[in-house]
Amino acid sequence: MRFLTLVSLGLSAIISFGAVANELTSLAPQHQTGTSQTVPAVPKNMVIMIGDGMGPAYTTAYRYFKDNPNTQEIEQTVFDRLLVGMSSTYPARSSGYVTDSAASATALATGYKTYNGAISVDEQKQPIPTLFELARARGMATGLAVTSQVNHATPAAFMVHNEHRKNYVEIAEAYLDTGAEVILGGGQKYFSEELLEKFKAKGYQHITEFSQLDGIDKPKVLGLFDEVQLPWVIEDKQGHKLRTLTQKALDLLSQHEQGFVLLIEGSLIDWAGHSNDIASAMHEVDEFAAAMEVVEQYVREHQDTLLVATADHNTGGLSIAAGKDYAWHPEFLHHVTMPPYILAEKLVEQDEWQSSLTAAIPVEFTSEQMELIADARAQGAEPLTYALQTVIDQHSNTGWTTVGHTGLDVQVFATGPGASLFNGSQDNTDIAKKMISLLPQLPAKQQ
Amino acid sequence: MRFLTLVSLGLSAIISFGAVANELTSLAPQHQTGTSQTVPAVPKNMVIMIGDGMGPAYTTAYRYFKDNPNTQEIEQTVFDRLLVGMSSTYPARSSGYVTDSAASATALATGYKTYNGAISVDEQKQPIPTLFELARARGMATGLAVTSQVNHATPAAFMVHNEHRKNYVEIAEAYLDTGAEVILGGGQKYFSEELLEKFKAKGYQHITEFSQLDGIDKPKVLGLFDEVQLPWVIEDKQGHKLRTLTQKALDLLSQHEQGFVLLIEGSLIDWAGHSNDIASAMHEVDEFAAAMEVVEQYVREHQDTLLVATADHNTGGLSIAAGKDYAWHPEFLHHVTMPPYILAEKLVEQDEWQSSLTAAIPVEFTSEQMELIADARAQGAEPLTYALQTVIDQHSNTGWTTVGHTGLDVQVFATGPGASLFNGSQDNTDIAKKMISLLPQLPAKQQ
Ligand SMILES: [Zn+2]
Ligand SMILES: [Zn+2]
Repeated sequence: MRFLTLVSLGLSAIISFGAVANELTSLAPQHQTGTSQTVPAVPKNMVIMIGDGMGPAYTTAYRYFKDNPNTQEIEQTVFDRLLVGMSSTYPARSSGYVTDSAASATALATGYKTYNGAISVDEQKQPIPTLFELARARGMATGLAVTSQVNHATPAAFMVHNEHRKNYVEIAEAYLDTGAEVILGGGQKYFSEELLEKFKAKGYQHITEFSQLDGIDKPKVLGLFDEVQLPWVIEDKQGHKLRTLTQKALDLLSQHEQGFVLLIEGSLIDWAGHSNDIASAMHEVDEFAAAMEVVEQYVREHQDTLLVATADHNTGGLSIAAGKDYAWHPEFLHHVTMPPYILAEKLVEQDEWQSSLTAAIPVEFTSEQMELIADARAQGAEPLTYALQTVIDQHSNTGWTTVGHTGLDVQVFATGPGASLFNGSQDNTDIAKKMISLLPQLPAKQQ
Repeated sequence: MRFLTLVSLGLSAIISFGAVANELTSLAPQHQTGTSQTVPAVPKNMVIMIGDGMGPAYTTAYRYFKDNPNTQEIEQTVFDRLLVGMSSTYPARSSGYVTDSAASATALATGYKTYNGAISVDEQKQPIPTLFELARARGMATGLAVTSQVNHATPAAFMVHNEHRKNYVEIAEAYLDTGAEVILGGGQKYFSEELLEKFKAKGYQHITEFSQLDGIDKPKVLGLFDEVQLPWVIEDKQGHKLRTLTQKALDLLSQHEQGFVLLIEGSLIDWAGHSNDIASAMHEVDEFAAAMEVVEQYVREHQDTLLVATADHNTGGLSIAAGKDYAWHPEFLHHVTMPPYILAEKLVEQDEWQSSLTAAIPVEFTSEQMELIADARAQGAEPLTYALQTVIDQHSNTGWTTVGHTGLDVQVFATGPGASLFNGSQDNTDIAKKMISLLPQLPAKQQ
């Protein structure tokens, strides 16, 4: 296993960027992809897609959520088409077996294990070179499109280095020096007017509305479309925000002759998992799948592009059935039209709350369930949120074990040149090492 | 997807054995395995191993259960070495999205979806030809080694046809006509003296003790080593029963010149999952892994043999962490020395129960936990079982959502000629179709 040799270097070694760059390019694959002679062995462009918290129960559940129960067949999803392997997600030993999004994003961005909370720094808080930095050193363009704030843990680990993910303003300021061509997502509250002026001085077009995307036909762009995260897919009338951002990011980065590395994150899958909110989770996975299909189509049309998609960890301990019944009822979830916590905030403020409840979730609840909801409403929005989740879980027979993360391995999906490198079982650090090994050689003068 | 074409034939079609045999051999693979020129493209022998209920959380948890926390590295398991893909497990539409072991064993043995409870019969209760039957029609030997009773749902679906898995005596009687060379496991209570005489008349050596295995140096053998299932690995002093049976089955079947198909099942992984008993589950997975390593080694030495391993479904909604903490503590599980239900039965009968508890689980419980245990003990063995499980789950931070099955996709492991056929995502029926496609051509006179 040549990729494991890097681990033995140890995280504590102080590594110059150049040294690592040479180390990693020596891993460049010897073999062909074997699909066709017109497909290059190594990609010109790479897209890494991360479904935050999207463990295997999410993609399996999604297959049944999308199933038409009136047909004989259960249709394949993009996840079924592109599955190639799985990945372990554990952080550095000091953080146990269960990772947070920062340590796992660091693993995926750098190839190194670190402590939970770290943004591409090692256990001694020293920066570790990232896939984005190594790509830029080779003249490639970089970019990201996410549904959280753009400076949230996962994109941050690809972009910058910080000893803690919570330093949102520091992280946003550090984005200024990354040279990233495309930055799309939420997070207006972390970008001061002063900081935005600095981005503009560096040539960034700054936009805040999706309608402005049409007017952007070349990099650089800093698109911040919401205060913090983008709207929940389940109640977003406009729709397909991540798919739209993904298409725009591909259009812009494709203009770069020396290739690009693009990060796409379905950030809110994880947030729905933390809330144990199965209906919102399925809609967020649906939007992530739509974005994956955009990239899948791009790879079909541009055979020099590699797509690797994975999750950073599993969230919520979601299970497809609960209690005693061998059954799951995704058809119920299509009736739910907003996240329980938002519905709860509405219902506590309304006297005619029953009709609002029926409007939001037009199904018949049992008298026991209505009593549970009424009692919880009397106690406030948070108890009511839990009650609504309980009722939704009962109807769909969905199970959860935690409001945090679990240590379950996640899936790996890939297509394009080099995709077969990701076959089988691997660690999340291996994913980064493999992608880094697929970068072009450094120009001779820099070696 | 040439394997999907068979699905369109529909379960309701009445299919003669010969017709299906011709249908399936037309799927024989065209491609090479690509590993070495000395490895044949199709296997002479096939071993299918089923970890009953062993969803991906079991194999992931097992990696951490086996981890030595005092070393820097987390070692790979046999599951990591051999992972190639995943499989969906849903039964026929009439049974929803969550399968039982009978429908999934039917899928794995025949390539057809059926209703929960069915033993290799379709929704019209008509028999469907099995991998074992198709192999025997080609002159191959067949055999099985399991840790449940030999006539339990999974082995039964490979051996015979029955409209319901619960017809244990009918199923045992039907085994007489299968011609299987090796039948090893539990289940003495289902085999009457009269039935055993009939097996002996057919040339079977009948044994009931593991020590008798040494004296068996050729088929046929019917080894029934316990009334129902074999002992729990966690408290089995003799140890490594499934590994021993696997080695013996390989030794015996290898003597057959025309090749063999062997089924190995780690049956009690599922039973531990139904009990939400994490310590027993880890030990059962450990024994299944040991048996997989025996077959892995056999494949190394016999490059004409294919190993395919999978689970039939996921049990219990096991999660690696629960509640709020991002942590799992497998090190605690090594202190547990018997299944909670067996410990509970002991403790309710003893006045000095505290010392027995400490002997069985030598750790310090909190005063709250001791109170929970004492209160439950006063109510009887079943409440005490739940209390002990709760305490073990608290110490290890393990989560469960159900005492039944879930719809989560399971993993697929493979090595040997044809292994690459199982790469990526597939349905459980595809696994059977692929294995059947790897059978040799029928002799000309039978075509
Ligand atoms: Zn999270
Ligand atoms: Zn079961």
